[in-house]
Amino acid sequence: MYRILLFTLLSFSATAQNDSTFIRSIYDSALSGGEAYEDLRSLCKDIGARITGSAEAEMAIYWGEAKMKEYDFDKVYLQEIEVPHWERGTREAGWIKSKDGTLIKVHLLALGGSIGTNGLMEAEVIEFKTLDDLKKANESQIKGKIVFINQPMDEKQINTFKAYGGCYAIRGFGAVEASDLGASAVLIRSLGLPINEHPHTGSMHYVDSVEKIPAAALSTQDAEKLSEILKNGKASFVLEMDCRSYPNVKSYNVIGEMTGTEKPDEIITFGGHLDSWDTGEGAHDDGAGIVHCLEAMRILKTLKYKPKHTLRLVFFMNEENGNRGGQDYAKIVSDKGEKQIAGVESDRGGFSPRGFHCDGPDEFVELLQSFEPGLTQYDLHEFDYGFGGVDISPLHLYYPDIPLFGLVPDSQRYFDFHHAPSDVFENVNKRELELGAAAVASLLYLLDSNL
Amino acid sequence: MYRILLFTLLSFSATAQNDSTFIRSIYDSALSGGEAYEDLRSLCKDIGARITGSAEAEMAIYWGEAKMKEYDFDKVYLQEIEVPHWERGTREAGWIKSKDGTLIKVHLLALGGSIGTNGLMEAEVIEFKTLDDLKKANESQIKGKIVFINQPMDEKQINTFKAYGGCYAIRGFGAVEASDLGASAVLIRSLGLPINEHPHTGSMHYVDSVEKIPAAALSTQDAEKLSEILKNGKASFVLEMDCRSYPNVKSYNVIGEMTGTEKPDEIITFGGHLDSWDTGEGAHDDGAGIVHCLEAMRILKTLKYKPKHTLRLVFFMNEENGNRGGQDYAKIVSDKGEKQIAGVESDRGGFSPRGFHCDGPDEFVELLQSFEPGLTQYDLHEFDYGFGGVDISPLHLYYPDIPLFGLVPDSQRYFDFHHAPSDVFENVNKRELELGAAAVASLLYLLDSNL
Repeated sequence: MYRILLFTLLSFSATAQNDSTFIRSIYDSALSGGEAYEDLRSLCKDIGARITGSAEAEMAIYWGEAKMKEYDFDKVYLQEIEVPHWERGTREAGWIKSKDGTLIKVHLLALGGSIGTNGLMEAEVIEFKTLDDLKKANESQIKGKIVFINQPMDEKQINTFKAYGGCYAIRGFGAVEASDLGASAVLIRSLGLPINEHPHTGSMHYVDSVEKIPAAALSTQDAEKLSEILKNGKASFVLEMDCRSYPNVKSYNVIGEMTGTEKPDEIITFGGHLDSWDTGEGAHDDGAGIVHCLEAMRILKTLKYKPKHTLRLVFFMNEENGNRGGQDYAKIVSDKGEKQIAGVESDRGGFSPRGFHCDGPDEFVELLQSFEPGLTQYDLHEFDYGFGGVDISPLHLYYPDIPLFGLVPDSQRYFDFHHAPSDVFENVNKRELELGAAAVASLLYLLDSNL
Repeated sequence: MYRILLFTLLSFSATAQNDSTFIRSIYDSALSGGEAYEDLRSLCKDIGARITGSAEAEMAIYWGEAKMKEYDFDKVYLQEIEVPHWERGTREAGWIKSKDGTLIKVHLLALGGSIGTNGLMEAEVIEFKTLDDLKKANESQIKGKIVFINQPMDEKQINTFKAYGGCYAIRGFGAVEASDLGASAVLIRSLGLPINEHPHTGSMHYVDSVEKIPAAALSTQDAEKLSEILKNGKASFVLEMDCRSYPNVKSYNVIGEMTGTEKPDEIITFGGHLDSWDTGEGAHDDGAGIVHCLEAMRILKTLKYKPKHTLRLVFFMNEENGNRGGQDYAKIVSDKGEKQIAGVESDRGGFSPRGFHCDGPDEFVELLQSFEPGLTQYDLHEFDYGFGGVDISPLHLYYPDIPLFGLVPDSQRYFDFHHAPSDVFENVNKRELELGAAAVASLLYLLDSNL
């Protein structure tokens, strides 16, 4: 499946000159006359937000298939999967009602998967700073109230994904914890770093044993307002949402391949997720990843690269609220007895690439690190252990020993846009996007050459 | 003046734990409750564009002095200098006039220092792809025409400053070269990477022996339009500009110091430039550098750091069209017999920091590189030879052996905004800005500890 490290290093050194020339041609192709930016514009503007199960998600599947055919990949096909279907509905509004009767209309978004309010609901608000504080509360404090969890992401974290990880459970499990203590609804502070008016949605979960209650995210600005008002006394919150879940529907992963010339049965799977949340345009999350990977294969094909292994590009469906695309893909290829040798994913936005992470055995991290000298001139410096990506992660259930690589772009701006109305094409920079595509293409080339 | 490298390395290792704790506290202070972003907002919105000699430049001097006093630096004072004074005036417009009489109004900006047109001028346009092509042309081809130099910045360069360097001479010397061959005016393609409607101004030069002609930059989008029209036949250009130069005026560098506790007479000079072009708000260029350095000293003071050497923050005036602030500062401190031991500058925008460059003897580059292990956790990876900055560069005329360090932020977006109407506060990201301030503070701390 792969050479041992020493041999790899020698081999890499011997072919370093060729690698250097080829990687330079990848970057030239991405930065001059590249198609990543126009493809992202098209995905964001011709399709738009594309939550799983929506008409836009269906159109995105057709878009992806058409693009792969236009770029003349060796095989292009759809992989059928079953996916959840949740819709925001047409009513979504909330007001803070102070004790003196003053109303403040807030910016909020229902969390994905939430039930609606069944008309207007109103209840007193009780604030908690953290999920742990909520867990320690008594049922008598909470019964019938709207629980408000107001933990900011830790701005001191250099890597913003660590700050996100520290708050993720609030969004995912806040409703269950609050309902377990008798709350009538849960409001969370948006998982976003800037203080502004954009609410950030995202997935949340129910459990069968606990009553379902509505769950929504307030913009960070409104969360601060509500907290300020609560410092001065009691306040209630008025909420209306008519979001709801529908029965599962049929959907697809979109797949395109360049067939391997030496080992066609050994497959490197790479991609991003085609679905997005239903707000904004899914530009950074994960339109950028989609076009990074699409453009990477277009470039390799344009440069007439003949991969040794089969390079399989997958536009995964349903990463945001179920990950059925990733889960089913891994099961299907395993059931078929396919030989998967590596996974690569881009799902951290279209920002200046910093490097790659590798989730897998040590020798692959070392292999990744052996690529560093050839890539520092492209401002890539981060070559380390780390998570590959949500879509490809189920491959480890069936192929525990393969490496899963994730593109690591600069993380500073990601949580300005993540799951928010501001995640639109205009907030993606052309050159940053192009450099991400070139980085993915370079990694694919180096993996294909060295695995 | 400085310890030799080996000792430095040993010393650095011995104090690495203290360094690590202190640098973490610098980053905490910048990212949580920092003032960089609000200070930049104030400079951009309360002052705005602040070209040398303008009322806004004068207000920026007061702003800077007041900020330094508010932050209670040990000494705050103004350093008088004489600066040029150029104004754009009130009329600035241009039209492409095709052979069929169609008019297209373009987006343009007079280059800084240009003379006006003295009313409406009109002449046939002749296009050149490069400055070298222009130099090879015959006087008979050019006499009386408007020369249009349409060289795009090389988008294949990974570092956009290299692409800028490749076109810089067009803006600086295009007018002289064109006039020398009898042209009546020169139009250049804006030195910007995106294709959009924003023209980018910047400095240009005349020489006494060649007649002065008006010089302006078209937006990249309009440059492409004009070039397209010229492919189909002759076209003329109609231009009106009433910009002009005025007699030199008095201005100031703004200076604040933390006095050294062990070697107060050894000075580390650091800063950015307070002036900007007269379009946009000078947010990245160089509002970001100003607040990086201001915030760096505020943080060191807040953390009760007692520098060994004197840390001198300089807000330089007139970097954009003369660099009189930098030139005069260097001469004044040299005339006084001051012992300058290092310079640090931030003038490459408020983007995610990547590292630092050092212009100076090898041992200082090695010293800089010895800081890398302590700074990689802050996503700083670029520690290399390179230019320090325009403002501090004249120090090398008088102190040729001192190191001059430049902050290196990610360069991908800089030439979207540089000298353009789009260089406004809204295009600066809070966290990226804060990380730049922390990087500057960390470098100052490490230099002060190790020099």
